[in-house]
Amino acid sequence: MYTLHIANKNYSSWSLRPWILLRQLDIAFHEEMHPFQADIQAQRKNYLAFSPSAKVPVLQDGQTIVWDSLAIAEYLAEAHAGVWPEDRAARAWARSASSEMHAGFPHLRERCTMNCAVRATPKTVTAELQQDIERVNTLFNQGLARFGGPFLGGAAFTAVDAMYAPVVFRIQTYDLPMQGAAAEYVSRMLALPGMQQWYAQALQERDTDDAHEQDVVRYSDIIGDERQQ
Amino acid sequence: MYTLHIANKNYSSWSLRPWILLRQLDIAFHEEMHPFQADIQAQRKNYLAFSPSAKVPVLQDGQTIVWDSLAIAEYLAEAHAGVWPEDRAARAWARSASSEMHAGFPHLRERCTMNCAVRATPKTVTAELQQDIERVNTLFNQGLARFGGPFLGGAAFTAVDAMYAPVVFRIQTYDLPMQGAAAEYVSRMLALPGMQQWYAQALQERDTDDAHEQDVVRYSDIIGDERQQ
Ligand SMILES: N[C@@H](CCC(=O)N[C@@H](CS)C(=O)NCC(=O)O)C(=O)O
Ligand SMILES: N[C@@H](CCC(=O)N[C@@H](CS)C(=O)NCC(=O)O)C(=O)O
Repeated sequence: MYTLHIANKNYSSWSLRPWILLRQLDIAFHEEMHPFQADIQAQRKNYLAFSPSAKVPVLQDGQTIVWDSLAIAEYLAEAHAGVWPEDRAARAWARSASSEMHAGFPHLRERCTMNCAVRATPKTVTAELQQDIERVNTLFNQGLARFGGPFLGGAAFTAVDAMYAPVVFRIQTYDLPMQGAAAEYVSRMLALPGMQQWYAQALQERDTDDAHEQDVVRYSDIIGDERQQ
Repeated sequence: MYTLHIANKNYSSWSLRPWILLRQLDIAFHEEMHPFQADIQAQRKNYLAFSPSAKVPVLQDGQTIVWDSLAIAEYLAEAHAGVWPEDRAARAWARSASSEMHAGFPHLRERCTMNCAVRATPKTVTAELQQDIERVNTLFNQGLARFGGPFLGGAAFTAVDAMYAPVVFRIQTYDLPMQGAAAEYVSRMLALPGMQQWYAQALQERDTDDAHEQDVVRYSDIIGDERQQ
């Protein structure tokens, strides 16, 4: 059985990607939670025990260690059907969109950091943040229109939906403007059993991390928090 | 035949990846050069004519557009042997290292920007830059030791070498310290026919881009320039 090493569900955007992929594809795995620590050097030491890059997520499959979220998707695609769309054009699109997310969207990532529980309003929507948000809208609407929906690469949930799942939580947290079919896609994603489970568990976490909480208030005003205090 | 859209060989690190992969694997392609422009809005408009993300590289295969360097590797892997290592463990390692590069190494990227022609010395090696350099050393030495070399994933040049090819030019430009087998690997990479060809063409380019040239002097002192003035 696979072991997936992750960090706090409330904050760890990269952990969510392989987790939701495994969950929605019904691939059995064992989850190991390694909460972020205030002492970065202590965290680094703890993470190095299972992760060559000292980062999460990591997938362990017997002797094989796969230490990056996108690499985990490709590793799983070799052994399981349905990780990428079946149609070759849809697959090329899904891989381009996934890799673009992996290397890009720096403003969305920095200014709208993942925090599933809070509700917040960006203090300023810079031109760069605006451009990232527009690009997400374009990608969502393009994928849905071209491959027929209800998921980005067509009829089934695939890795490209998993790669954008953290963006879906960001859209909810910061109430980012989505147009047309993209808005409905976001609602549909939030209603998935796997997303609901991740979200419920994020709300229950008692390991809050100051650095991650401060990332929100640097760029946004908090207007709500779904965690029971 | 494939068309590969790229930007200036002297600067465009992301363009080098699919270019060197195609070149070293002897896959025929037609190259289209789109030099960077000082006017960002004009460049964006020009790039949007062939690239949905307004970025290079883009691979065009008939009606199919693949608009990200890592996605291009995976797209090619479906149609050509040898893109990834044959051994499954080596492949998992190569994909992890490639995706780690795709999403990571922000300090190396920012402070040691790719400029094949110049020779420069970083003004300050920050702790974060140092950590990125050490990670490159660790990865190179680990891949070479585990899979037997002379390439990162074993006997053949594969996509993981392509993904780190821009780092190899950065190591040359900034004379970054490499230990043991990693140092020999860098020399070996620089001697490859494809790398020599890219380098020679970079030196011949007359389209210099001020923004990219300034990226060097922000963090480094220039001590040489291989271009004939
Ligand atoms: N490219 C990696 C990035 C992973 C990453 O940055 N993970 C964060 C948590 S969401 C982390 O572990 N940070 C700890 C650190 O950087 O020290 C992936 O996609 O898996
Ligand atoms: N994730 C993309 C990144 C591509 C990228 O950032 N390309 C740069 C050139 S090296 C670019 O086109 N920049 C133009 C811009 O950002 O406007 C890939 O790997 O292909």
